[in-house]
Amino acid sequence: MSRFIRHGLRWTRQYSSVGQKDIDHFRTILPPHAILTTLPPYNTQPDELDPYNNDWMQKYHGRATTVLKPKTTRQVSDIVRWCDSREIPIVPQGGNTGLVGGSVPLRDELVVSLANMNSVRSFDPVSGILVADAGCILQSLTDYVSPHNHIMPVDLGAKGSCHIGGNVATNAGGLRLLRYGSLHGSVLGLEVVLPDGTILDQLTSLRKDNTGYDLKQLFIGAEGTLGIITAVSILTAPSPQASNNVILALPHFDNVLPLYRAVKRQLSEILSAFEYIDRTAYELAVKHGQGRALADEDVAGAACFVLLETSGGRREHDEEKLNDLLTSLLEADKPLITTGVLSQNPAQFSSLWALREGVTEAVSKEGKAYKYDVSVPLASFQHVVDATREHLRSKGLLGEHSVKHVMGYGHVGDGNLHLNICATAYTQEIQDALEPFVYELVSSYHGSISAEHGIGAMKTHALHYSKSETSIAWMKKIKALFDPRGIMNPGKVLE
Amino acid sequence: MSRFIRHGLRWTRQYSSVGQKDIDHFRTILPPHAILTTLPPYNTQPDELDPYNNDWMQKYHGRATTVLKPKTTRQVSDIVRWCDSREIPIVPQGGNTGLVGGSVPLRDELVVSLANMNSVRSFDPVSGILVADAGCILQSLTDYVSPHNHIMPVDLGAKGSCHIGGNVATNAGGLRLLRYGSLHGSVLGLEVVLPDGTILDQLTSLRKDNTGYDLKQLFIGAEGTLGIITAVSILTAPSPQASNNVILALPHFDNVLPLYRAVKRQLSEILSAFEYIDRTAYELAVKHGQGRALADEDVAGAACFVLLETSGGRREHDEEKLNDLLTSLLEADKPLITTGVLSQNPAQFSSLWALREGVTEAVSKEGKAYKYDVSVPLASFQHVVDATREHLRSKGLLGEHSVKHVMGYGHVGDGNLHLNICATAYTQEIQDALEPFVYELVSSYHGSISAEHGIGAMKTHALHYSKSETSIAWMKKIKALFDPRGIMNPGKVLE
Repeated sequence: MSRFIRHGLRWTRQYSSVGQKDIDHFRTILPPHAILTTLPPYNTQPDELDPYNNDWMQKYHGRATTVLKPKTTRQVSDIVRWCDSREIPIVPQGGNTGLVGGSVPLRDELVVSLANMNSVRSFDPVSGILVADAGCILQSLTDYVSPHNHIMPVDLGAKGSCHIGGNVATNAGGLRLLRYGSLHGSVLGLEVVLPDGTILDQLTSLRKDNTGYDLKQLFIGAEGTLGIITAVSILTAPSPQASNNVILALPHFDNVLPLYRAVKRQLSEILSAFEYIDRTAYELAVKHGQGRALADEDVAGAACFVLLETSGGRREHDEEKLNDLLTSLLEADKPLITTGVLSQNPAQFSSLWALREGVTEAVSKEGKAYKYDVSVPLASFQHVVDATREHLRSKGLLGEHSVKHVMGYGHVGDGNLHLNICATAYTQEIQDALEPFVYELVSSYHGSISAEHGIGAMKTHALHYSKSETSIAWMKKIKALFDPRGIMNPGKVLE
Repeated sequence: MSRFIRHGLRWTRQYSSVGQKDIDHFRTILPPHAILTTLPPYNTQPDELDPYNNDWMQKYHGRATTVLKPKTTRQVSDIVRWCDSREIPIVPQGGNTGLVGGSVPLRDELVVSLANMNSVRSFDPVSGILVADAGCILQSLTDYVSPHNHIMPVDLGAKGSCHIGGNVATNAGGLRLLRYGSLHGSVLGLEVVLPDGTILDQLTSLRKDNTGYDLKQLFIGAEGTLGIITAVSILTAPSPQASNNVILALPHFDNVLPLYRAVKRQLSEILSAFEYIDRTAYELAVKHGQGRALADEDVAGAACFVLLETSGGRREHDEEKLNDLLTSLLEADKPLITTGVLSQNPAQFSSLWALREGVTEAVSKEGKAYKYDVSVPLASFQHVVDATREHLRSKGLLGEHSVKHVMGYGHVGDGNLHLNICATAYTQEIQDALEPFVYELVSSYHGSISAEHGIGAMKTHALHYSKSETSIAWMKKIKALFDPRGIMNPGKVLE
């Protein structure tokens, strides 16, 4: 039976903490090296648990005493079954690279790390279907399929440490979504340990299977609140044989949409990225040494920039298409761009990307970042940034000693805007000026308050800005169906 | 409360039939022309209901007295709410083009036809996102987005009559899946009337939205058993500017896989179809005048054929790539193909496709067809066909007066084989020889007994060949959660 205690004004579920009896039981399931605990007989030093208790931004902090690192699905199942019977809450943890505190304990939950489940189970180079343990690091899977001329359908900055299981659990978006679509399409099957310990094996390696409800979809993006993903079957894509990129400077934001339309029409199937950076973000990236700065004459008069990438089968064909595109753009009666700089070699290719990918790091170097990851109609990107800046100005918060920069960048092709506010410090005043202002602004565009980062612990209170009451009520019914005791990643996604 | 009656050896749920009181209530919701019923005051002729009570193959037959054709989501909701209170079972019906009896009543259920909900709600030519009523015919949506240089991400033979709502409800696969992926990826949002009448509005027109559980996925492929899809938000793709095709003749089935690998490597992103036809299927298509027969010298020594399609941005580029491919295939030391015939103009392009698409019609003309739509590993395609033929032979059923042909064709790129058995008549003996033999054979390859056609009424008893007990148990829990009274398309998907 569930127990509840009075907590402030709300009734909060009372969970069990991991105790000696639990450690004794876990020792029957796992070898000693797979158990990290500050409890006897292991008495691990608390700081050894820091990487599991804290996120990389040092924003979320848990107090777990125990971390388990199973190697097999059966072990995960045995652990979960025990926790279910004891009402011990569990935080499933992958690479712990999330941005919303979804993979860190809120209190002293048990952390189940998938890091030791890191084997490739199978790969079929004909179909491109890869079956891998959830704890496989994304980059290692990329390396695994690369000699077979395939690439993973998902790519993100954290690829060197994030796990494929975490990618799926958070429905990671990233840089290849425009080309390869979302994980809801490319994930073919999952193996999941449900909150009662049952192993749900839907690890099909079939491209097509229309036999009943597609249950696995529920776990994609559920952030570990409905069960622990232990293995993933995913469709990898044939590697493009050639990639090119170009950065375009635009005199007005208003030109971005007509440009996107022209580019889609002319590049069609070889367009693999269409990324937006406003002038503020560009200058910050350059200031902090990210990527390749353009020549002064290329930047003059530019309000914003677009980074285009093509991935195709033949370099000469793609270059020809890109050149034709640039010519037609520059020779138009009313040119949409002021200039375009094409990368000429792999080093230039990387340094153009570094300009776009380096914005995040530049913002961190410049000050404290308030980050919003939203979906809004493409046409409203600039307005969201401008309205936020004006709102901060009206509150007297804009200036060298408070909010230094407000900027926008992101995946135009996906309607995904990263709105970043860079300040000298984290303050309650700025926070209060930003929320719920930003969420209400996004909601007024019927946008999403989390395009790709998820809800985690950070945005549970704001879910209603993006989802109707009916939708949230049904999410809660699904949660209660799968996890009636609420032991699976409590406090994440749903309040 | 639900009532049950003893039915044979099982307890079967007792539903209400539509009665006078119900018609009177429906008249408060709908105008007279939206109500077809054999009951007073309308007294529709029973044969007017034939198109709603029977499927196009004339295999499934219902006895519905009443068909309702709402125009708005609110009307659908009002109808469902009433039926829920009265425990009247409902069959949601789109274009009624399915192959497994999923959209036809089994008894005298109420048919709710979506045919009058046929408006496009919005289309954004920049993002390519289309929002349409569920009753829009697929071809009409293709025509709608075509002037904006977009195409629907799904295409199938029934496009002239199937509805987009039905496509989504059955998770239709079709001819473009290899290129554009499954509907789980391209459907961005749904509006659904749940079995209690609640309208679940998840009709987002955002490409990315990571805010909680992706509930809409449950309705994709649920075949109307969890609710009625009333509108769909879907990502359309930029139209390819050029399409080419070629038919290749192969001396052995064993060459299909190496060929597929070589083609994927050389054509990469422009490959849009890789379809397989065995010699039997080819000859039947030619015999019945489907498509363009190859010259005798091209067919000599061919065990099977592959139809390749490319869709790219520039005709000359794609032709160059195709020519290079053919040259390298034919000049290899051990050529994988004996010959290849490239279409030279739109008429030839269509007639090559007609060879592949015409197999279905040719089979119908030749005799009575037993059709299996399965997913199996690519390497086992021929073995599944051969083993089935041998099994029928061992039962003495192969010959001019019983089973005339056993053949395989389908979407190699998707691992989807259409196994067709063509006989002089439908007989119990052939049926018993085929089932469970075929299902067991597919199951031995960990395949799917329904790659794209769904379960419907036809395969509920065979679901366990493709799904584990645990999976089926969870499907039932989901069904009970959404539809506790079981009024929504009863007897479909789950027994």
